[in-house]
Amino acid sequence: MNKSRIEAFSDGVIAIIITIMVLELKVPHEADIHTLLPLLPVFLSYVLSFVMIGIYWNNHHHMFHAVRHVRGGVLWANLHLLFWLSLMPFTTAWMGENHIESVPVAVYGFVLMMSGIAYYILARALIRLEGADSALAIAFGKDRKGRISVVIYAAAIALAFLSPWIAIGCYVAVALIWLVPDRRVERVLLAAHPGQAPPER
Amino acid sequence: MNKSRIEAFSDGVIAIIITIMVLELKVPHEADIHTLLPLLPVFLSYVLSFVMIGIYWNNHHHMFHAVRHVRGGVLWANLHLLFWLSLMPFTTAWMGENHIESVPVAVYGFVLMMSGIAYYILARALIRLEGADSALAIAFGKDRKGRISVVIYAAAIALAFLSPWIAIGCYVAVALIWLVPDRRVERVLLAAHPGQAPPER
Amino acid sequence: MNKSRIEAFSDGVIAIIITIMVLELKVPHEADIHTLLPLLPVFLSYVLSFVMIGIYWNNHHHMFHAVRHVRGGVLWANLHLLFWLSLMPFTTAWMGENHIESVPVAVYGFVLMMSGIAYYILARALIRLEGADSALAIAFGKDRKGRISVVIYAAAIALAFLSPWIAIGCYVAVALIWLVPDRRVERVLLAAHPGQAPPER
Amino acid sequence: MNKSRIEAFSDGVIAIIITIMVLELKVPHEADIHTLLPLLPVFLSYVLSFVMIGIYWNNHHHMFHAVRHVRGGVLWANLHLLFWLSLMPFTTAWMGENHIESVPVAVYGFVLMMSGIAYYILARALIRLEGADSALAIAFGKDRKGRISVVIYAAAIALAFLSPWIAIGCYVAVALIWLVPDRRVERVLLAAHPGQAPPER
Repeated sequence: MNKSRIEAFSDGVIAIIITIMVLELKVPHEADIHTLLPLLPVFLSYVLSFVMIGIYWNNHHHMFHAVRHVRGGVLWANLHLLFWLSLMPFTTAWMGENHIESVPVAVYGFVLMMSGIAYYILARALIRLEGADSALAIAFGKDRKGRISVVIYAAAIALAFLSPWIAIGCYVAVALIWLVPDRRVERVLLAAHPGQAPPER
Repeated sequence: MNKSRIEAFSDGVIAIIITIMVLELKVPHEADIHTLLPLLPVFLSYVLSFVMIGIYWNNHHHMFHAVRHVRGGVLWANLHLLFWLSLMPFTTAWMGENHIESVPVAVYGFVLMMSGIAYYILARALIRLEGADSALAIAFGKDRKGRISVVIYAAAIALAFLSPWIAIGCYVAVALIWLVPDRRVERVLLAAHPGQAPPER
Repeated sequence: MNKSRIEAFSDGVIAIIITIMVLELKVPHEADIHTLLPLLPVFLSYVLSFVMIGIYWNNHHHMFHAVRHVRGGVLWANLHLLFWLSLMPFTTAWMGENHIESVPVAVYGFVLMMSGIAYYILARALIRLEGADSALAIAFGKDRKGRISVVIYAAAIALAFLSPWIAIGCYVAVALIWLVPDRRVERVLLAAHPGQAPPER
Repeated sequence: MNKSRIEAFSDGVIAIIITIMVLELKVPHEADIHTLLPLLPVFLSYVLSFVMIGIYWNNHHHMFHAVRHVRGGVLWANLHLLFWLSLMPFTTAWMGENHIESVPVAVYGFVLMMSGIAYYILARALIRLEGADSALAIAFGKDRKGRISVVIYAAAIALAFLSPWIAIGCYVAVALIWLVPDRRVERVLLAAHPGQAPPER
């Protein structure tokens, strides 16, 4: 089965998720600059979620680039990931509108954690198809980054009840870990196809 | 006529349908966890519809994968399917917001039934183009699954007035029947192109 | 310049336009079947607009299928068409919500007329690129259908002030004229590439 | 890494941005033509933003057409551009709803300026990949248009507090500068591939 259509569908869903989040930035009814201030937590939540979903899109892009074909199970593992990501506009808006309180921040972290787990399941399903000695399997390896992220999310959910800001700090930390796209995949792929251009920087 | 653009357009519409349903999860104005409880029926309706539309996307993907070319009639049969699917955000929200009452649950089933019929019409239009001895025609066969689904939906619409929960049970049952993607198509295609990888599991 | 990206972008915009119209079907707060009755004009407006935009997508698909390459001017002619189509969710909702009154029905027709003119301009821009002896130019010919449609729309806008229902009748008539996809293009293309399958029915 | 998926994702996001802006044209509850008058500033803001985003899409299309491959840094430079563009529905609605007042008009210009800077960063990232002697680098040159635009935006933000209409005039001026798509790229590319058709007009 061709992988291009699963990529196109994922692109569509992720593009919509990343864009409808901005609809939560409710237009103020006055023209005063001060009316933007109460929107600041909503805006910052939007920036964080935009980066998070950007990370997923980038890694999804890298991962499928290393894949040669897909099958039934992968379609569902991919839909499972998209399901959790589709809840991000809701959790982002809830967190932003309540000016960073414990429960919404913890729920936000829960959806991030489930997305992380779903991504891991998808990666495993793809590696099972590609084979243990495939470029993807070698590149993915033990997936230390993915495991650490899920652990940090779990901790952040608990810590949100101590202070929501510590939890937010954890989410930002995970974002920073991932902001570098999955170079592992890129590096191994390049070793396999040395004709391609070397990784940037 | 090339099939890739009809696939891309369908992917776009289905991606939007599956994503805008989440907008019905209205963000609560308080940060309390109890404010999520009244959202539970809306959330469960969302999960059910997400799975249903996921099933349609998967089967649409499988079916068009087996198709070589499309023509005028197929474009309209496809738009007809997308029309009924586009009503799902409305019926999902109505069912969820009214905490599972008879009329919305029956209307939800009606749209599912019409989508099932539209899918059947689309499959027939494609088989007419491909020929009775094509891989698609053999794979589709008598379409027992599709026929059973429509019968279950019809029964569920009536049963919804007895108890909406029985109808919901029927919808879940149909989802379970279909959750396995259309292996028939995959199997026959593989017999035709033995070079491709064998079906997963 | 490659035509695939202009097709993909148009598919995206048209997919969103056709899908967000359904958001105007506001979910009733009661579970009674009678609460659906006031939604009927909105629903019928939705059906009409869905068919209209479906026609544009089908013909856009056919037209670009006959095109080999695109250039700057075509990108803007295409965006101009998408602009007028993007106003359809607004005019559809306004017409539906006011239960078919003169002004909204006339405004609805105005946007349809401008879309028709924009489609004509786009077709001319493409024919200028392809050449007067191209398959597209021959297929498009004098574009009798397109011209008649614009005349009917203009008449309907005036007639809407006599009776909105006569105008609606005109819109339905235009839809019926176009429901058959642009067979002219298909026929001439087939003459040029006799290897392809013959037109359906 | 293949460039087609970054194009598809960008197309999706831009298609959604350009289309959800129309949702700010709130449907009036009366059928009178006079109810459209208060919508005029919202409508004109929509037209301006539609043209602006159309310009970005056209130039993005031209630029990536000249690109052979992409890598990690480009994905983020592209997401950065999409982030600023995604704020346009908000600033457009705010500007339109407040009937062209200083602060919203200045904020509108700020988002345009940041989009311009993000486009410049993306172009630089692509040129770094392609090489200083690539068709893209030669076509982009000193990017006089891009630099002038950013300067005009910066001036317009300040001038908005003198008169919002002068700022609007500046935005329209920038739009006019860019309405002609990036012929520089087209011209140099054609010199490199003389087999392709000559630029229109």
